[in-house]
Amino acid sequence: MSNTFGDVFKITVFGDSHGKAIGGIVDGCMAGLAIDESLLTKELSRRSAGNDFFSSPRKEMDAFEILSGIMDGKTTGGAIAFTIPNNNVKSDDYLNLDSLFRPSHADFTYFAKYGTTVSAGKLQASARIFAAVVLGGAIAKQMLHQFGISIYGFVNQIGTVSFDKSYKEIKPETIEDSIVRCPDIATSEKMMEELKTVKANHDSVGGKICCVITGCEPGLGDPIFEKLQARLAHAMFSINAVKGFEYGSGFRAAGMTGSQHNDEFIIKKKKLSTLTNHSGGIQGGITNGEDIYFNVAFKPAPSIGQRQKTIDREANEVEFTASGRHDVCFVPRAVPIVEAMAALVMADTYLKNMKNAE
Amino acid sequence: MSNTFGDVFKITVFGDSHGKAIGGIVDGCMAGLAIDESLLTKELSRRSAGNDFFSSPRKEMDAFEILSGIMDGKTTGGAIAFTIPNNNVKSDDYLNLDSLFRPSHADFTYFAKYGTTVSAGKLQASARIFAAVVLGGAIAKQMLHQFGISIYGFVNQIGTVSFDKSYKEIKPETIEDSIVRCPDIATSEKMMEELKTVKANHDSVGGKICCVITGCEPGLGDPIFEKLQARLAHAMFSINAVKGFEYGSGFRAAGMTGSQHNDEFIIKKKKLSTLTNHSGGIQGGITNGEDIYFNVAFKPAPSIGQRQKTIDREANEVEFTASGRHDVCFVPRAVPIVEAMAALVMADTYLKNMKNAE
Amino acid sequence: MSNTFGDVFKITVFGDSHGKAIGGIVDGCMAGLAIDESLLTKELSRRSAGNDFFSSPRKEMDAFEILSGIMDGKTTGGAIAFTIPNNNVKSDDYLNLDSLFRPSHADFTYFAKYGTTVSAGKLQASARIFAAVVLGGAIAKQMLHQFGISIYGFVNQIGTVSFDKSYKEIKPETIEDSIVRCPDIATSEKMMEELKTVKANHDSVGGKICCVITGCEPGLGDPIFEKLQARLAHAMFSINAVKGFEYGSGFRAAGMTGSQHNDEFIIKKKKLSTLTNHSGGIQGGITNGEDIYFNVAFKPAPSIGQRQKTIDREANEVEFTASGRHDVCFVPRAVPIVEAMAALVMADTYLKNMKNAE
Amino acid sequence: MSNTFGDVFKITVFGDSHGKAIGGIVDGCMAGLAIDESLLTKELSRRSAGNDFFSSPRKEMDAFEILSGIMDGKTTGGAIAFTIPNNNVKSDDYLNLDSLFRPSHADFTYFAKYGTTVSAGKLQASARIFAAVVLGGAIAKQMLHQFGISIYGFVNQIGTVSFDKSYKEIKPETIEDSIVRCPDIATSEKMMEELKTVKANHDSVGGKICCVITGCEPGLGDPIFEKLQARLAHAMFSINAVKGFEYGSGFRAAGMTGSQHNDEFIIKKKKLSTLTNHSGGIQGGITNGEDIYFNVAFKPAPSIGQRQKTIDREANEVEFTASGRHDVCFVPRAVPIVEAMAALVMADTYLKNMKNAE
Repeated sequence: MSNTFGDVFKITVFGDSHGKAIGGIVDGCMAGLAIDESLLTKELSRRSAGNDFFSSPRKEMDAFEILSGIMDGKTTGGAIAFTIPNNNVKSDDYLNLDSLFRPSHADFTYFAKYGTTVSAGKLQASARIFAAVVLGGAIAKQMLHQFGISIYGFVNQIGTVSFDKSYKEIKPETIEDSIVRCPDIATSEKMMEELKTVKANHDSVGGKICCVITGCEPGLGDPIFEKLQARLAHAMFSINAVKGFEYGSGFRAAGMTGSQHNDEFIIKKKKLSTLTNHSGGIQGGITNGEDIYFNVAFKPAPSIGQRQKTIDREANEVEFTASGRHDVCFVPRAVPIVEAMAALVMADTYLKNMKNAE
Repeated sequence: MSNTFGDVFKITVFGDSHGKAIGGIVDGCMAGLAIDESLLTKELSRRSAGNDFFSSPRKEMDAFEILSGIMDGKTTGGAIAFTIPNNNVKSDDYLNLDSLFRPSHADFTYFAKYGTTVSAGKLQASARIFAAVVLGGAIAKQMLHQFGISIYGFVNQIGTVSFDKSYKEIKPETIEDSIVRCPDIATSEKMMEELKTVKANHDSVGGKICCVITGCEPGLGDPIFEKLQARLAHAMFSINAVKGFEYGSGFRAAGMTGSQHNDEFIIKKKKLSTLTNHSGGIQGGITNGEDIYFNVAFKPAPSIGQRQKTIDREANEVEFTASGRHDVCFVPRAVPIVEAMAALVMADTYLKNMKNAE
Repeated sequence: MSNTFGDVFKITVFGDSHGKAIGGIVDGCMAGLAIDESLLTKELSRRSAGNDFFSSPRKEMDAFEILSGIMDGKTTGGAIAFTIPNNNVKSDDYLNLDSLFRPSHADFTYFAKYGTTVSAGKLQASARIFAAVVLGGAIAKQMLHQFGISIYGFVNQIGTVSFDKSYKEIKPETIEDSIVRCPDIATSEKMMEELKTVKANHDSVGGKICCVITGCEPGLGDPIFEKLQARLAHAMFSINAVKGFEYGSGFRAAGMTGSQHNDEFIIKKKKLSTLTNHSGGIQGGITNGEDIYFNVAFKPAPSIGQRQKTIDREANEVEFTASGRHDVCFVPRAVPIVEAMAALVMADTYLKNMKNAE
Repeated sequence: MSNTFGDVFKITVFGDSHGKAIGGIVDGCMAGLAIDESLLTKELSRRSAGNDFFSSPRKEMDAFEILSGIMDGKTTGGAIAFTIPNNNVKSDDYLNLDSLFRPSHADFTYFAKYGTTVSAGKLQASARIFAAVVLGGAIAKQMLHQFGISIYGFVNQIGTVSFDKSYKEIKPETIEDSIVRCPDIATSEKMMEELKTVKANHDSVGGKICCVITGCEPGLGDPIFEKLQARLAHAMFSINAVKGFEYGSGFRAAGMTGSQHNDEFIIKKKKLSTLTNHSGGIQGGITNGEDIYFNVAFKPAPSIGQRQKTIDREANEVEFTASGRHDVCFVPRAVPIVEAMAALVMADTYLKNMKNAE
């Protein structure tokens, strides 16, 4: 089911980077949910909003159209279909590269899988399809909001500049004040410096996002192969360019002892809670009521303005310089995508677990 | 489908830690595959083999019985069912803890999900069910072997001791020579020292495993939500105690530039290859023919011999010391589990992609 | 997955009867398949083409738009998304019935499931969404055509008029010559008489369709819960108003003995074949290479022009007469829908089984 | 997923007819459900109980063993695994037929799908695996019982003898009094006469079962491709030898007009109900609260004592007479299988729909 994600709350997306439209179908959303379309617009614009320092100049006007499933501002219980038109398509920029395999792009692997008929990799592997994911995630967020669950992400690394503090030390409402979506002002400025340097080198740079899910009741998730962390990891690695995922203590846990790592149970405000949260809100695949938090690492965009060597379909060695648009760093723009995938996982998990409610 | 993994080559497992048997069903394996049962025994013993320094003294005699699907040493195409009896069960060790929530165990979350009737968390969340996974993975490995695909893992961190070199610098055939499954002799000895210290403290310690998949042809995997790395991540986070997963360049990619990270295509031995392999053998969710490699981080076992504070079901503060068996470090024993989950992913991916063969 | 059908070749549909558009996404179609869009138009028009005797006067101009997945006339391997605009929508005809439960419609059951917010039943339960199914089926047919598999259906009963001969005694190419899609001229005329009588009574009438699948190689399908006949039955009962399904000898088999019913194997044209075909081309859930054939029974349309009694949402007894359009008999128009669902099953089955090809 | 059925309440079965055991895993059953094992035994014995007139002399002692998921008489929420040993296996009876394709058996189709290595068809296609289905269904029945849902079936045709009255005219508690499971005494005796004649001819005979599901609240089921009738049809055609399925008015609906067929809504005992029930308790794929009822047609067993012609693997014409056990008519023994598959569908549907409960 490569274009479908979820078991109960499901999304199916479609879209070539240079076709008429991309879009998706959300199936399984509860009936009677009020949908505020301005919030859908807001999430979409968070993904597409450009900035000359880290983003490509392509101005994607992510207008969308709801085709079914919402009537008089409320979900009907039927599938919610939507399209997002592709504007400003300059296919020539890409398609003149059709005969060579760009390094660290999906050109070669799509060629190996789908054959020679079209440059499928260039079409399908576009990150633009994640605009549809963001829109579906925005619907999921509105459903989750009703159950008290909130999700936010922020950038805690761009290239050599890191923000190493816990999510507990930032104010979520300040994230959007930073162009790079890092809520620490000093770090945010250093990241902008890093981006200027990279841009001057006609290069790109990677980064890292921290995402936080608050408000989950205990008991959400499943054992064995459907642990909540497995669903979240699956979701995050569905995003283009993701190279690493860790939740709670993450990779640091490998260096810790049990006596350091164990989260002691306590009673806080008459509720069972834990003194520390190395578990990241999940134990045995199931929520324990504490915050869920995780990091997602992104590689640098493979499209750079420098001259590169590669091989073409006829096995010739060639050199090329990518023309057209490309991002210096797409990590800030990936924040709403990370949030959207998390929202899709949580909406699905929430509805799946309502069957255990009684 | 919490107890089932895979779409074409599928495994369904079952087993309470203290019931009569655990086991599983492998459905979708190709017909006519020769199965060497001694290799199944070998894989099982790799998981269960104890060592006084890092493992619990419980001697699990992982005999198994094939109930269906194999006849005269070959698969029939039907479901392959197997059981592994539970011996040496001392349920009292666990069940006298029934009324309290052990820190960083699944006791509380299973209680929240499944209710009070039985100590489900203590029953189901046992790592022992992964013996069934190892057996299913051993069948998958034999199928993959026929297509030239091999999988091996090794320990590259235990607590504060790391082995930081690439998998390319080790000899896979020496892994099993080390009690801790680290093929570098000097590091292996340091890890043993670390384990002795931790054991003396009645504590446990985490660690990290590197796993390598060789021999994949280009073109295996799927785009969007079924990227091969997403399936691998899902598989790894299904394993108890996993806190982090990264493939190829992993978290390091966040600090790199595109010009550093891009894998230049070259022709090597008349085959398209890449000069570097930051991509970890996967581009756009699909194999490119290079080695797939990834790291998996494990938290320390939450069962330790030190006195701990916690809360019981009646919300009382209590103190306890876990009696009975517990591992100082289960990471070396997790190597065959990581390999097995990887094998299940690859067998499923391989069979799914055969439809693109023509 | 209520809006998605299939495992490998999958369709996801959407659409309210009175929204902007209906449509769907076909995911999993092979890459490089030539798509003749005129054949898609033809199939759509077979479903929508009206006739004053048996069909509603609504002229549905089923134009469609392909949004992704096809480039230069060939599939790319990516998801194929399409929309079909809704024209000529007169929502008032339906929606003034909003407060009452029409007999044998889905009004009450959708109300019970989805609640009061919108008249979901009237929106979603519309047969119009099957235009999207027909379009997806038309893509499946073109894929199957490449592998030598053909599908056709015809009407063999309308109300009291039946055509009881085997599908072997008709000429498939004459089906479309008949307004009621019954290739026997004499029966076709009797059916038209029946329709005139029913229409004069402001009533509707049921009917039956026979569908035939030719050209399957032996070995397609799966055992146990995924028998080919189970998939076909599932597909047919997904169509609105279907009340019965039988394949091969069908219900007659209940009255037969084994010596009458067994299909003796013979060699015909150097190929294994059977003397009779009570098995309907399937044995043990898997094709044997003979023709697959089955019957599908439809109830009469519940919308009739007569005055009817029912109950409204406030539990009052009410009388009403349905205004607006309604079909005397939708069975002839259901022929392309039956074919489309059969094509979706066979395309999925075919791709699933390619993994057994080697 | 050929050996797995269901989405939330799932069963995975395994078993070769002549291996050590058959069995299954039920995953997704609610926690805390009391399981009466004597009811499991009772259902199993209903399937296996032999009778010299219509059943084979093989005495299958269907003892079973629960391996996991039930503790102290209650479900834990974990997977419930069970095995049923195969006793009295006389493999020679079957396997000396290994080189020929028995008419209307799955020998040839399994050969075409799985190849020559083993006589997979003879192993896997055995109806015996449905003992595991019956056991899983017995667990589902106990869950459904708690929600007021009951399921019963009875035989309403054996060969030329039919019982044509509605299920409303029989007393369900008398079904088991009849050897052939037909609650009408006079018809039951005629059926026994038919069976004696067929047996004397060394032949077999088909039949038909009516199954009734009572106690469903309105609103269970899903639209489009997961209509409740589609799930039931899928389930029934998973049973070996099923050739037809109809629910409610079934095939008769094809001959009816809308004014005859429409079920007028009325208020009965202060509850919305319908005057007639041609809808068979389902409208638009969703329950309306009336009884669900359906008919399932079975072909005669293909194993008969008469001499038959066929073809062997080397394409030679051969004659053979099946030795060993075979049923004159397995339809009475199929009643608990039909009920079990219906119970599995309803348990799955019920749990899926609990998410709409609030």
